[in-house]
Amino acid sequence: MKNTFGSSISVTLFGESHGEYIGACVDGLAPGLKIDIDFIKSQLALRRPVELISTTRIEEDEFSIVSGSFNGYTTGTPLTILIPNKDVKSADYDKNRFIARPGHADYTAYLKYHGFEDYRGGGHFSGRITAALVAVGAILISALKEKGIEIGTHISRLANVYDSNFSDYKKDFKEINSKYFATLSKEAEEKMKDKIIEASNNSDSVGGVLETVILGMPEGAGEPWFDSIESELSHILFSVPAVKGVEFGDGFKIADLLGSQANDSYEIKNGKVITKTNHNGGINGGISNGMPITVKTAIKPTPTIPKEQETVDFKNNKNTKIQSSGRHDPCIVPRARVVVDSVIAIALSDILTKRFGTDYLKGK
Amino acid sequence: MKNTFGSSISVTLFGESHGEYIGACVDGLAPGLKIDIDFIKSQLALRRPVELISTTRIEEDEFSIVSGSFNGYTTGTPLTILIPNKDVKSADYDKNRFIARPGHADYTAYLKYHGFEDYRGGGHFSGRITAALVAVGAILISALKEKGIEIGTHISRLANVYDSNFSDYKKDFKEINSKYFATLSKEAEEKMKDKIIEASNNSDSVGGVLETVILGMPEGAGEPWFDSIESELSHILFSVPAVKGVEFGDGFKIADLLGSQANDSYEIKNGKVITKTNHNGGINGGISNGMPITVKTAIKPTPTIPKEQETVDFKNNKNTKIQSSGRHDPCIVPRARVVVDSVIAIALSDILTKRFGTDYLKGK
Amino acid sequence: MKNTFGSSISVTLFGESHGEYIGACVDGLAPGLKIDIDFIKSQLALRRPVELISTTRIEEDEFSIVSGSFNGYTTGTPLTILIPNKDVKSADYDKNRFIARPGHADYTAYLKYHGFEDYRGGGHFSGRITAALVAVGAILISALKEKGIEIGTHISRLANVYDSNFSDYKKDFKEINSKYFATLSKEAEEKMKDKIIEASNNSDSVGGVLETVILGMPEGAGEPWFDSIESELSHILFSVPAVKGVEFGDGFKIADLLGSQANDSYEIKNGKVITKTNHNGGINGGISNGMPITVKTAIKPTPTIPKEQETVDFKNNKNTKIQSSGRHDPCIVPRARVVVDSVIAIALSDILTKRFGTDYLKGK
Amino acid sequence: MKNTFGSSISVTLFGESHGEYIGACVDGLAPGLKIDIDFIKSQLALRRPVELISTTRIEEDEFSIVSGSFNGYTTGTPLTILIPNKDVKSADYDKNRFIARPGHADYTAYLKYHGFEDYRGGGHFSGRITAALVAVGAILISALKEKGIEIGTHISRLANVYDSNFSDYKKDFKEINSKYFATLSKEAEEKMKDKIIEASNNSDSVGGVLETVILGMPEGAGEPWFDSIESELSHILFSVPAVKGVEFGDGFKIADLLGSQANDSYEIKNGKVITKTNHNGGINGGISNGMPITVKTAIKPTPTIPKEQETVDFKNNKNTKIQSSGRHDPCIVPRARVVVDSVIAIALSDILTKRFGTDYLKGK
Repeated sequence: MKNTFGSSISVTLFGESHGEYIGACVDGLAPGLKIDIDFIKSQLALRRPVELISTTRIEEDEFSIVSGSFNGYTTGTPLTILIPNKDVKSADYDKNRFIARPGHADYTAYLKYHGFEDYRGGGHFSGRITAALVAVGAILISALKEKGIEIGTHISRLANVYDSNFSDYKKDFKEINSKYFATLSKEAEEKMKDKIIEASNNSDSVGGVLETVILGMPEGAGEPWFDSIESELSHILFSVPAVKGVEFGDGFKIADLLGSQANDSYEIKNGKVITKTNHNGGINGGISNGMPITVKTAIKPTPTIPKEQETVDFKNNKNTKIQSSGRHDPCIVPRARVVVDSVIAIALSDILTKRFGTDYLKGK
Repeated sequence: MKNTFGSSISVTLFGESHGEYIGACVDGLAPGLKIDIDFIKSQLALRRPVELISTTRIEEDEFSIVSGSFNGYTTGTPLTILIPNKDVKSADYDKNRFIARPGHADYTAYLKYHGFEDYRGGGHFSGRITAALVAVGAILISALKEKGIEIGTHISRLANVYDSNFSDYKKDFKEINSKYFATLSKEAEEKMKDKIIEASNNSDSVGGVLETVILGMPEGAGEPWFDSIESELSHILFSVPAVKGVEFGDGFKIADLLGSQANDSYEIKNGKVITKTNHNGGINGGISNGMPITVKTAIKPTPTIPKEQETVDFKNNKNTKIQSSGRHDPCIVPRARVVVDSVIAIALSDILTKRFGTDYLKGK
Repeated sequence: MKNTFGSSISVTLFGESHGEYIGACVDGLAPGLKIDIDFIKSQLALRRPVELISTTRIEEDEFSIVSGSFNGYTTGTPLTILIPNKDVKSADYDKNRFIARPGHADYTAYLKYHGFEDYRGGGHFSGRITAALVAVGAILISALKEKGIEIGTHISRLANVYDSNFSDYKKDFKEINSKYFATLSKEAEEKMKDKIIEASNNSDSVGGVLETVILGMPEGAGEPWFDSIESELSHILFSVPAVKGVEFGDGFKIADLLGSQANDSYEIKNGKVITKTNHNGGINGGISNGMPITVKTAIKPTPTIPKEQETVDFKNNKNTKIQSSGRHDPCIVPRARVVVDSVIAIALSDILTKRFGTDYLKGK
Repeated sequence: MKNTFGSSISVTLFGESHGEYIGACVDGLAPGLKIDIDFIKSQLALRRPVELISTTRIEEDEFSIVSGSFNGYTTGTPLTILIPNKDVKSADYDKNRFIARPGHADYTAYLKYHGFEDYRGGGHFSGRITAALVAVGAILISALKEKGIEIGTHISRLANVYDSNFSDYKKDFKEINSKYFATLSKEAEEKMKDKIIEASNNSDSVGGVLETVILGMPEGAGEPWFDSIESELSHILFSVPAVKGVEFGDGFKIADLLGSQANDSYEIKNGKVITKTNHNGGINGGISNGMPITVKTAIKPTPTIPKEQETVDFKNNKNTKIQSSGRHDPCIVPRARVVVDSVIAIALSDILTKRFGTDYLKGK
C-alpha cells in the first residue's frame, strides 16, 4: 500500500502542511499498551524546531488520540492520532505555485497528482508530517522497552564534523535519548552548532549522518530474503524525507575489507553465543543474531534555503529564479534523530509481531 | 509476506541449495510479455561463477518455465520457474552441521528455524537462489526495455580499486550489460582481477560497490512516504545476500554538502524540465522526476573463505575453529551485478504496474 | 491487515461508539475525484435511524474531511474523514460491563482484547462505525458513476415479506437509490413496515435480505482464484455487522438446478456478446463477463432487543439475565442498504484500480 | 495479490490444465510441521474423480514437494508442491478455441488475458488446480489437528436431496472425513447417487450444498471489521470454482427469524461460557466465541455437460452451438468437499498465525 507501512502493525500517515490536521492511523497494536502522554510529548518536543538553529515556525504539536485508546491503554483497535495545524501562512505559497523549489517535491508532486495536490507548505510532503511518526513511534518505543528492546541514535556526523563513537551503549542511550542535540561529545556538539550557524548566516543549510543502535532485539527475527531486517528497516528509513543512504554494520566500508576481516567470529561468552566484532551489524542472512543492530542514515541538507536559486516555472515551461523568504531550518539532522528512532520502532514492532503474534508487545 | 516481494507484480522465491529445485513463482505479470529464452540464458550466464575468479561449482542453470507461459508469451497467470540443482555434494556439510561459519546465516537460521532448516550448502540462504531472481528479472528487463526503461550497473569499486564514471549512459550500457566483469575501464578491470586473485591466493575474499543507473523511468512514479522509490528499491536490494549498504544520488556524500550544492537546480532544456545536476538521483519526495535514477549498493566480501576462522559449535555451546574446504568464490561482486539489475527490474515493474495498471508493461 | 480493506485503494476504519470520533482513512484515491459534500450528506442521511422504525439516538453524522482534499477534489494523498460522536450516554453501559448481550460482540471482544476494549455502546463493534464506510463509499459511488458503473440495492425480503423483482434496472435504481426504505413495491414496503412495528411492539427485532445489482462493470476485471470478484465482494460484505450470508447470481438456489439450466447461454446481441440468462450473476471464473453483477446479502435481526434474555456475567462466570433499556433499532435492514452499496463501491474501486491503474477512476 | 491468499501463511496457486505442472507455493509455514505423505495422498484421492459419478480422466495426482521440506518436516521456508499433468489430450481443445462454453471462464479469460491465455482444458481456471489446494490443505489440516482444531464437511444437499444433520460432531467427522461420498445418511447417499446418474444419463449435471463445521477454534480469533472470520473464510471459499454462495450459522434463514430467536443466549456450562444455540455459527462481531463455527457453501452444477448448448464464437462474433465431447463430471460436489476442507484449513491457519505468531501451529 502506498502510504501504509507494515502488515502486522500497520501505520498510515495522512495530512497536509496547511490542512486541518496531520496524523496517523495505526492498526494491529496489542490491547493493553500503556499510552504515556508525557513521553509522547517529550518525543514530539525533540522533533520540534529550536530557535537559532532551526525554523521559527512555532510548532506546538498538541495532539489527541481519538480512537483505539481507553483509560490510558490501547484497546487493540485502530488508534488514530490527530495533530492540528496552527500558525499556517498559506498566502506565502500561492504566488510561487508553479515555481519548483530545487531539492523539493513540488515538481514531482505536480507530475504525480496532476495539479490537484495541496501545494501549500509542501502539502503531504511536508516534514511536519513526521510529527505523526514520532507520536506513533513513542507508543512503540515504550512497548519495546518493556520487552527489553532499546533504540539509541546520535548525530555521528554533521557538516563533516564527527561525533565520538559509542563507548557504553546503555549509558550513552540514557544521555542522548533525552537530548535535543544528540551527540556523545560535547565538543563535537559545539563545532556542529557553529557549522549550522555559519550555514544559516550564509543563507544555506547542512546535512549529516545519524547512527542508530538497537539493543535487545530477540534472536531469530527477520526473514531470509525479501523481508530481511535490513529490507524492512531501510524501507521505512527511506520513507523519511531527506534520507539518501542507509547502511548496516560497516555498510559501504565493508566493501573495502577482506573476508577474513569482515566475518564476525563467533565465541561463547558467559554461556552465550556472541560475535567478537560486529561488522555485520547484528544481522546475518536478514535475521538477527543477538548482537546490537547498527544502522546509519544519511540526511541531506535542508532543501529550503534563503539563497537565490535557479529553477523553472513548470506550468509555463520557462526558466526563472526562486528565493525562499519563509521560515526555514538550516539543519534538520538534530530533529530527524527522533524521527529515525520512531520509524525504527515501528518497523521492529511489525517484524516482532509478525513473528511472535499480535500480543507480543503486550508482554505478560 | 515473508518471502514475497511486490503487490502488483509479486515474486516468491523458493528452494534450498541441495533440494530438488530452486525457483520463483511470479504473479501479476501482464499477459503477452515475450519470453526470450536466449536472453534469460545469457543473463543466467552472467551470474554463473567463472573459473579462477570464482567458485568451481559447475552451475549450469538449466531452467524451465512450468506455468504462466504459452506459445512463448506470458499468459497473465502465475509464472513458475524451476532451476534444478545438480552437482551437489551434501556429505561435505553434515560433519559441520552445528559449526557456525562466520559471516554466514547458519547460526541465525538455526535460531529462527529451530534446527528444522535444510543446512546443506546454506539451504534457503544460498546465493544460488539468486539465479531465480535473475531468471525473473530477465523477463522484466525485456518488458521494461520495450517501454524505454533501461538499467545499467557497473562495478564502481572492488577491493578499493575504482572504476571510471559513466560518460555516456546509453553507450556504456551497451558495453557493460553483456560483460561478465562489468567495468567501464579496462585498466580498472585488470587491477580488480589482480586483487581477486591475490585474495584467492591468500585464502581470503574481497567485496565491492555496484553503481546502477535507470534511464527512462516515467515521471511521477513512486509515493511520498512509505512506498517511496528509494524505499521499494532498497527493500529489494537489501534482500540480496551480502548487501550491507544502499544509497541514492550522492548518498552518504550528500550529507557533507551544503544545501545550495545538494539542491539540483531545474532548467528547461529542449522544452523539457530537467535538473542541471543529479545529486538527488532522479527522485524527489520519493517520486521520479524524469532524470536518471542512480543507486549504489555495497557488497561485502564473500563470507566463505578457506582461511581458518574462530567460531563456535552452537549445539554444544563451545568454541571451535572452522576451515572451509569446499568450493568458494573469492569475490561475488561481478556476479552480483546481474542480480542487482534483476531485482531493480522487479521493483520497478511493481511500482509501475501499481501506478499504471496490470497491462502497463505489455505496451500497446 | 486487520482493519484495512484493499490494496490499491485501501480503507482503514477507526473509532469507538463513545470515543471522540469515528472515521476512516483512505489511501490510493486518484487525484481529482470530485468531493460532492451534498451527496455524502444524503448518503449518510440514508443510513441514519428514522423515528418509529429505528433507534431514537439522534445521529447527525456531521463529518469533516481533514486530509487528502483540496479545493473540492481529492489530492491523491490519504483522505481522512472524521465523524464526531455526540449524544452519548456512557453511564448506561458501565453497570452491565461484563454481562454479554446475546448476539453481540461484547464477549468475543473481551476474549480478544483481554478487557482493554472500550465496551461503551459496542465500542469499535458499533454499527455506528458504518457511517464512515458510507462517507467513503459516497465518494467512490460518484467516481464509479462517472465511469458508467452504477450500484443499486433493494430490500428483497424483510421479516419474510418479499419485494418485487427489478424490472428495469436503470429506472429502478433512480427510484430506490434515494429512498430510505428501498423497496420496489409500495405494497411490500407497507407490509414490511408493519412487521417492523409489530416486532418493535413485541420488544423484538427482524432481519432481511438485500439484493444488489451492479451495472456497467468493465469486462475482464477480477482474478481467477483468490481474488475473484466474488471473493473480494464477499470479503467486504461479511465485514458489515449482522451479515450472515452472501450469494452471487442464483446463489444457493443454483445448487438445485441442472447444469443445462444453470449455464448461461451466450448470444450475440447488437454486435455484443451477452448471456441470455444471468444465473451466474455476471461473473465466470471470478471475472466479470459484462452482464449485471448480482449479489444478495443476508442481514440478521438486530441483536439489541428490549426483551429480557438469558446470558452470563463472563467476568464472574455466572448465569444472569439482561434487558436492554437503551435506544434500539427493531430493524437495521433499511439502513444497511446504503452500507452495502458503499462497501461494494469500495471493493469495486479496488478491483478496478488494481487492474487499470491508480488514475482509472479519475476518468479522462 | 491476485493469486495469493493470506498474509502470515500465504499460498500462491500456479499452473494450467495442460501445462507441465500445476502446484502451489506456500510461505510462512512454521518449521517443524510433520509432512504426512500418506495423508496428503489420501486427501488427494478424495478429490480424484471416481468412475460412474465422475469424469473418466485419470488423475493420478502424484506430487512432489521440491522445497521447504527436509527430513519429513517443514523447514519454515517456502514450500513448493508440484503435481505433474499427465493424460492430457490438448488436440480436443484447439478446434473450439473461440467457442465459449456456457458457465465456463473461456470468454472471461479471453477478455482478461487478451487471447494469451492457455485455453486448453480450462487452462489456469481448470478445477484440476484445486489438487494443489488439497495438498497444501492436507499439511495444514494435520497441523491444526495437533492443536485440537478439526474440520468436517458433509454433503448437506445434492440435487435437492437432503442429508441428515450432524448428531455428534466428533463421531460424525470420523466417518465422513475418510469417505469419498461424504453424507451422514446412507439413504441420502443412495438417492443423491441416483440423481447424479440420472443427470449423467441425460447429458446433464447437478449441484449441491456442503456444510462444514469447525471444532476447537480458539476463542478471540478474527477481527471486528474487514478481517472478520466470515470475511476470510468467504474470501477463500469463493475462490473455489463453482461456489456461488456462502453462509455462516443460519445464514440466509437467520434473516427470517426474530431477534429473540436469532440471538444465542449464553450460559455457563461446566464452568465455561457457551451459547445454548448456535444461530450465529460460532462467530460474533467477526470473532470466534468458542462454539463450533458452521458454514455452508453452495456449489453450482458442473458447467461442462455433453448436452448441446447455444453459445457464441467470440472471436468471429457470431452465434453458434457447442456440444462437449470430452470427459466430464456430472457432479463435482463430492469431490469439492475435500477442497472446501482444505481452503478452510488454509484460511484458519492464516488467521491463527497472524494472531498468535508464526510458530503457533508448531505447537509446543
